[in-house]
Amino acid sequence: MLEQKTIIDRAISSHNLLILVGNANVKYFGRASSKLSNGDRLVIVKPDGTFLVHQNSGMKAINYQGPGSTVKTFLSGDKLILKSERLKPVHESIEVEFTGKIEIHSFPMHDDKKINVIGSEKQLAIQLEQNMGFIEKNLKILTNEADVKRGFIDLLAEDAEGNLVAIELKRRKAGLDAVTQLERYVMELRKRKNVKVRGIVCAPGITPNALKLLESRGFQFFNLKYDASQMNVRIEGLEKKQNTLDFY
Amino acid sequence: MLEQKTIIDRAISSHNLLILVGNANVKYFGRASSKLSNGDRLVIVKPDGTFLVHQNSGMKAINYQGPGSTVKTFLSGDKLILKSERLKPVHESIEVEFTGKIEIHSFPMHDDKKINVIGSEKQLAIQLEQNMGFIEKNLKILTNEADVKRGFIDLLAEDAEGNLVAIELKRRKAGLDAVTQLERYVMELRKRKNVKVRGIVCAPGITPNALKLLESRGFQFFNLKYDASQMNVRIEGLEKKQNTLDFY
Repeated sequence: MLEQKTIIDRAISSHNLLILVGNANVKYFGRASSKLSNGDRLVIVKPDGTFLVHQNSGMKAINYQGPGSTVKTFLSGDKLILKSERLKPVHESIEVEFTGKIEIHSFPMHDDKKINVIGSEKQLAIQLEQNMGFIEKNLKILTNEADVKRGFIDLLAEDAEGNLVAIELKRRKAGLDAVTQLERYVMELRKRKNVKVRGIVCAPGITPNALKLLESRGFQFFNLKYDASQMNVRIEGLEKKQNTLDFY
Repeated sequence: MLEQKTIIDRAISSHNLLILVGNANVKYFGRASSKLSNGDRLVIVKPDGTFLVHQNSGMKAINYQGPGSTVKTFLSGDKLILKSERLKPVHESIEVEFTGKIEIHSFPMHDDKKINVIGSEKQLAIQLEQNMGFIEKNLKILTNEADVKRGFIDLLAEDAEGNLVAIELKRRKAGLDAVTQLERYVMELRKRKNVKVRGIVCAPGITPNALKLLESRGFQFFNLKYDASQMNVRIEGLEKKQNTLDFY
């Protein structure tokens, strides 16, 4: 185990990506505690201190610490312990205790690329601006790009009767936060301006809870369909959700 | 590359955990699209179909698909392409194109253990039940374990004046959902019973947005401090948040 400790320590001090696979138990101490008894686990230690423990199924790491954490190794009898620690905002630590053979792989990693997302909310907002007829006739856009950039509300329009229409746009299924965000903005607009303000959520789906809240606030939901498969986004249509909560 | 394709295909069909490291670009098609140009990447394929692409920093996978996705490999000139696909709820795919040397590691994984969390909301609720004096004198618990199990509200109590007190408990910093969850419950209680209903959020911290919403609803926030370091949780105190939003 001493040899393996040396290999791991060297990988960490070289700022390599470190991959460990072996039978281990995991303890977490912090705001809560947790214990995961022995099983085969994948441990990833990134050069920035990120520490991830994965089981053999599921997307989420079962235990994790973010960048800035420090990793130390200890030997205890015939066991090798990896301890990831962070002190702020609260002291948290993850201890992985390997009890048998460990596969250790270490990689120098060069990567400075940022992901380029097509179909972002901003791009969808620009698309929707050009297709306001999907929502209703004679809807006039009031926002310009500068307002969109403020990130406050995605689109602001005026309807045929002179009411303000605030539109919250989500590229994924809308949750409670979409509705509460819209509500805060609508409330503020109602206070500032002396006109009726309507609220609309446009998203490819909405959770039952969010729909319930939305309906209780008198807002509308439009089901957004868009195609982003050709590396540029195109809104294909909006469908007004007439289903009430009973539908779900 | 043909030999590497064979090794990868064999690992996938054997339901092994597959780890790939190499220089690759990544494309995602689905509700949105994204493109990540070349850099060193870690790709994890789990036996259940989970597909994760990690960069050399940060906790989150830059691209991911959940369990039930299928992975196929293709050769295109001197490039090896891994394609993870899922069809429902919408067709989504991730394509990782390796352009050079790939490190391939495959592991049979045995792991059927579930994590045991100490400091869960239910455990905290039981602790808080025994320490209601932290909130105020003469607060009488009305819920029993059966109600807690319904997962609707964490604790329901009656104050000295006969008002109902609904308490939403979070073991992490409270967000908007904590407040909207509490609000729905308080609204329902007010409708059903003919008494005043108060709302309280207990959590180790609250986001500024959630605090704003909470205050606008007339609810109270208590800052929860607990110690879970000894593998059993103990509430150390509750501090009534007197700070208004201006504090932030």
